[in-house]
Amino acid sequence: MHTQYRITIIGAGRVAWHLAPALENAGHVIQEVYSRRYREAKKLASRLYQASAQDEPDFSDSSAEIFILAVADDAIRTVASRLLLPEHDTIVVHTSGSQPLGALADAQSSFTGVFYPLQTFTKDKEVDFSKIPVCLEADDDGVLKVLIKLAKSISAEVRLINSQERAILHIAAVFACNFTNHLLQMAETLTESHHLEFSLLKPLIAETISKGLTIGPRQAQTGPAIRGDLITLEKHMDYLRNYDKDYAEIYKVITQHILDTGYLDR
Amino acid sequence: MHTQYRITIIGAGRVAWHLAPALENAGHVIQEVYSRRYREAKKLASRLYQASAQDEPDFSDSSAEIFILAVADDAIRTVASRLLLPEHDTIVVHTSGSQPLGALADAQSSFTGVFYPLQTFTKDKEVDFSKIPVCLEADDDGVLKVLIKLAKSISAEVRLINSQERAILHIAAVFACNFTNHLLQMAETLTESHHLEFSLLKPLIAETISKGLTIGPRQAQTGPAIRGDLITLEKHMDYLRNYDKDYAEIYKVITQHILDTGYLDR
Repeated sequence: MHTQYRITIIGAGRVAWHLAPALENAGHVIQEVYSRRYREAKKLASRLYQASAQDEPDFSDSSAEIFILAVADDAIRTVASRLLLPEHDTIVVHTSGSQPLGALADAQSSFTGVFYPLQTFTKDKEVDFSKIPVCLEADDDGVLKVLIKLAKSISAEVRLINSQERAILHIAAVFACNFTNHLLQMAETLTESHHLEFSLLKPLIAETISKGLTIGPRQAQTGPAIRGDLITLEKHMDYLRNYDKDYAEIYKVITQHILDTGYLDR
Repeated sequence: MHTQYRITIIGAGRVAWHLAPALENAGHVIQEVYSRRYREAKKLASRLYQASAQDEPDFSDSSAEIFILAVADDAIRTVASRLLLPEHDTIVVHTSGSQPLGALADAQSSFTGVFYPLQTFTKDKEVDFSKIPVCLEADDDGVLKVLIKLAKSISAEVRLINSQERAILHIAAVFACNFTNHLLQMAETLTESHHLEFSLLKPLIAETISKGLTIGPRQAQTGPAIRGDLITLEKHMDYLRNYDKDYAEIYKVITQHILDTGYLDR
């Protein structure tokens, strides 16, 4: 049986919403839930066995061993500095992919770390934490050992990832997720502005991504650019120049990159 | 019970590979399979009940009513012109998203149409045709009626889409599929060049696309650009300028477009 920790959750947003119950299911005890918005803290606490809700960051009387900051990226530094921690040793971690370990420099505890579940969360959608990669970082070996135990209790995919590596993962995720979603939105706008149903493309999109993730995106690439089909590319560009110059520009730069980096010999 | 047709399949590639058995399962009879490469025609015919394989496009003795050209986009025009069709009336269709109806202008039959299943096919991966949108086009009403019957016998999603609309769908699919896949490849390159596992991002990618297709990409957009987080954007750009100027360029144009078109008020 793994070690069970007493944990306080700072924040009641989407990460906290899913992480707190997952930690409880793994046998840990959530002591307190803190949010500036008391209602939100109460709501999350009501999902948990015995956690109390707080809207003041005063934990001087808490018996928690680990404080997990699941707050907005740009709030981490400030919230960390305002936490009144108990007198016993505590570990303070944040859950952000984009913030360095140093964002916790102003916390009262010097035992700090990062506990970053690499997933996007939606409040009303269940997630299977066991398959979510958890990226860990800590300067202190003792802290790291605790975080590894904690992460392994909820996920089968635990990795040590330092701040610089996490920054790279974050940039890669911007390409693979934020930008891909934006391209879906462009396709939606393009179809709907011509009174065509975007939903016609959904089976194709789902299959494309499934294929890319299964056989790898390099093998899965299709379309006029990878075929070097300059006639179709020119036809599309002619059309897009009249439709919207930004669409034309984005079409051009990505197409050029596929032409430059793809394998044209297939 | 729907009408059952006698059909000849021209081509033995991925579309033919999946379409021919689906048509048979719906009760139609595949008479002949033609490919320049006899071996491929034989292979596909072996998946079918009684189809004969041919490597010559001579169908003067065929009793088929519908000829389905499932060949490469740039071969449609030539192959259509070379088909020796029987003396009775026949319908000739192609299955391409990117080619107009007019690509069949040189076929012996003037009863032409488009029968375009909007999906990407892989030979060793089963597909559920009933969920694949089939986009139909024909100038002749009689031809269109036959194509509607044929399409409805295999799919619940049958649409009338003319050549111009199909061209728009094709451009939208380039954005939503070819380009998104290329972004996955860029993320893969970025992670692997830093000795990070691309697979760490897979649950996030799968969830992102699932979310975008469920709640719609506009609602689903996340990331530094839609948040207007200029500090993170600038950090990423600084990094990418040193990493690879093309990555920086693509990052910049898509980010700018999200900033320009997104809702910053959330």
